[in-house]
Amino acid sequence: MLSKNQIKYIQSLHQKKYRQQHGAFLVEGAKSVQEVLQSNFEIELVVATEVFYKENVRLTDHQRTPVEIASPADLERIGTLESNNAALAVVRTKQNRPLVADPEEIVLILDDIRDPGNLGTILRIADWYGIRKILCSETTADVYNPKVISASKGSFTRVSWWYGDIVQFLAQQPNLPVYGAFLDGEDVHTLSFGSGGYLVMGNESNGIRPEVEAFVTQKVTIPRYGEAESLNVGIATAVLLDNWRRELT
Amino acid sequence: MLSKNQIKYIQSLHQKKYRQQHGAFLVEGAKSVQEVLQSNFEIELVVATEVFYKENVRLTDHQRTPVEIASPADLERIGTLESNNAALAVVRTKQNRPLVADPEEIVLILDDIRDPGNLGTILRIADWYGIRKILCSETTADVYNPKVISASKGSFTRVSWWYGDIVQFLAQQPNLPVYGAFLDGEDVHTLSFGSGGYLVMGNESNGIRPEVEAFVTQKVTIPRYGEAESLNVGIATAVLLDNWRRELT
Repeated sequence: MLSKNQIKYIQSLHQKKYRQQHGAFLVEGAKSVQEVLQSNFEIELVVATEVFYKENVRLTDHQRTPVEIASPADLERIGTLESNNAALAVVRTKQNRPLVADPEEIVLILDDIRDPGNLGTILRIADWYGIRKILCSETTADVYNPKVISASKGSFTRVSWWYGDIVQFLAQQPNLPVYGAFLDGEDVHTLSFGSGGYLVMGNESNGIRPEVEAFVTQKVTIPRYGEAESLNVGIATAVLLDNWRRELT
Repeated sequence: MLSKNQIKYIQSLHQKKYRQQHGAFLVEGAKSVQEVLQSNFEIELVVATEVFYKENVRLTDHQRTPVEIASPADLERIGTLESNNAALAVVRTKQNRPLVADPEEIVLILDDIRDPGNLGTILRIADWYGIRKILCSETTADVYNPKVISASKGSFTRVSWWYGDIVQFLAQQPNLPVYGAFLDGEDVHTLSFGSGGYLVMGNESNGIRPEVEAFVTQKVTIPRYGEAESLNVGIATAVLLDNWRRELT
């Protein structure tokens, strides 16, 4: 059974401040917990229903992960999901290590993506399109936010990220092209992408900041055939990566 | 000031049952209300803050739309948005008229899309890619759900829809190609799309039903370069439409 202190600790991880203080975050739901148990993340504790525990005992025993049995009602009380009849894991956050694109690699740069749902969707899209590295401005939503983890559908285990000053990063990076999503760029259907480089996606309302735009070597635009004012940033990321990958194969 | 009966009526429209009974639905927030006031939808009533009313008086006066002034707190109490400091409109639903693709037109078919957020996003994507008609299975989320209207960002005013038996529809439709999104179809990057036809998108968990699949003349697939198990149905719709439009231009 969970102690009062454990419950308090787990609930504190709903908030960024305590995730940073404790260096831990929450992973919730059957699929995400199964994925994180098979990843290289370090697990502090799994809280599981009896059914989930029995069906996944090999995953927890393998690493001798501490497990507490709880009811779905307990999981919903300590976690953030409205409904969770499976499990929750307390997982160690990773060190914030710098990431650089290899010459033939596509790397995403997120300039101030604020919505956790969008960030989670972008992780999932990156994982689909084989993108391994994401650089995030410090103002981008916290990747360890439970909504991001949940929306990423397990893809957070396969993509690496770094948070920091992306202006400074771009000022120092070598000669790879930097593509940026704008409404007045070159048509992505006719543009020639390079074999590697960076793709910058900007804030949901304001787009890419001028100080980041200064390092963009090629503005790109998804052509519009109707009248919607814009596409959601997750949608735009997918369409741009699809066009880039299409060209390389 | 809003009467008790008006408040009760507006709140009842949060539910599909009462939207159908009254033939009316809610549009909330500055942008969406502005768009619906400029569309061919028939407006029963606008509830607006004094500021919104003054700034948009031409839009309401033009059609002699009844307007009630209310505070943001009132708007939040009668509506579904957590925060609304602008307006809410009560709008007449449209007749459920059959829609057919013209020979050179792309028409979307939604087979059991359950999530209102996904449906709203798909309306916005359709609008971006110049799709004017969407056919929905009866089990697809209600397009008049406030979450759909809100997620569509005004695009509900520019796209038409029909709800009905899409199996029967497909059985009767003439010789246009029917593309369907599957995980084992032809690569959308190398496939040749026709100049018009239908694109079927299936349920978030189960995909396209077998009885609908029977009418699909070409299965299509977005190639995967990484390890995510799937893409969200809104994302997949955008990528498929982008590939189709790219080919036609």
